Amino acid sequence: MKISKRERQKLLKKTLSANPLLTDRELSEKFGVSIQTVRLDRLELGIPEVRERTKSAASAYARLKSVNEGEVIGELISLELDKSAESHLITTKEMALQRSEIVRGHYLFAQANSLAVAVINAKAVLTGSVKLRFHNVVEIGNNIKARAVVKKKINNKYFIEVNIYNADEIVFSGEFIMFAQMEG
Amino acid sequence: MKISKRERQKLLKKTLSANPLLTDRELSEKFGVSIQTVRLDRLELGIPEVRERTKSAASAYARLKSVNEGEVIGELISLELDKSAESHLITTKEMALQRSEIVRGHYLFAQANSLAVAVINAKAVLTGSVKLRFHNVVEIGNNIKARAVVKKKINNKYFIEVNIYNADEIVFSGEFIMFAQMEG
Repeated sequence: MKISKRERQKLLKKTLSANPLLTDRELSEKFGVSIQTVRLDRLELGIPEVRERTKSAASAYARLKSVNEGEVIGELISLELDKSAESHLITTKEMALQRSEIVRGHYLFAQANSLAVAVINAKAVLTGSVKLRFHNVVEIGNNIKARAVVKKKINNKYFIEVNIYNADEIVFSGEFIMFAQMEG
Repeated sequence: MKISKRERQKLLKKTLSANPLLTDRELSEKFGVSIQTVRLDRLELGIPEVRERTKSAASAYARLKSVNEGEVIGELISLELDKSAESHLITTKEMALQRSEIVRGHYLFAQANSLAVAVINAKAVLTGSVKLRFHNVVEIGNNIKARAVVKKKINNKYFIEVNIYNADEIVFSGEFIMFAQMEG
């Protein structure tokens, strides 16, 4: 299937945001273009090479304090402790009810809540309360992006806003109040 | 291990609320007492025989409209459509973080949210918004009980309160606003 350059670059961006660790070779095979074309696309889009992307993804995980790698629901993309964090999640069929294509709300909550825990610079964190809203449905196969921002911190009490986007549309927003366990 | 009658009856109640489908024989083996003793215990506690319990559990599932059996997180214990529902969940090690005994909040949310969906008499239901609070931590191996009550219903908009208890202690409370899809 021959697609336009514009279309291919859009896909490339989407593909790499879902899986930042694909190599230029894998991408070239995926899109049926030369490695050189992938490189030029990356340059034009300002996407660093896979080695850089690996380092940045790995260092996000390395910075985790409150949870272990694998305990963030979705893929942790960036993390600045006590500031902000981002995770991506590709929704699968198992996340929907059998009789619909709509992803169940508790998967979005799990992605948001685990990110709200991950962003905190403490060994142990508890969720206190949450006000949340589902704005739009998410379907199987969507790549949803959660962004957590620490809005305020009073002693060990954190006010964290987590929004989840599907493409550019907001699908979930939550205001989390979290408690970090003080280290003795 | 010999335990007092009082203690045994307490355990019996707990065991049956976690798994209402155990037979008198299985219970007698579990507690090392005669089947007759189990029957007397049940009589004193007002617990019907397993055949009745099976019917009641099965009919709760049979009444489900918005989700299929197996899509309620936990075991559905009772269901009166558009009124109330109850589910029990025995927490497992997989629900906690590797480095702690504390069950992650999104499992409680999943139990509560799926019960709020299950209680609604409609083929399809969406969660609109939720205000929730975690009151106390839940640990691995706890048997937590969620109760959903429909407080108000305006056209297809439902106001549902879900509380989760661990023994007699409240661990989670949530106010769910849900939308039933009208049938055309």
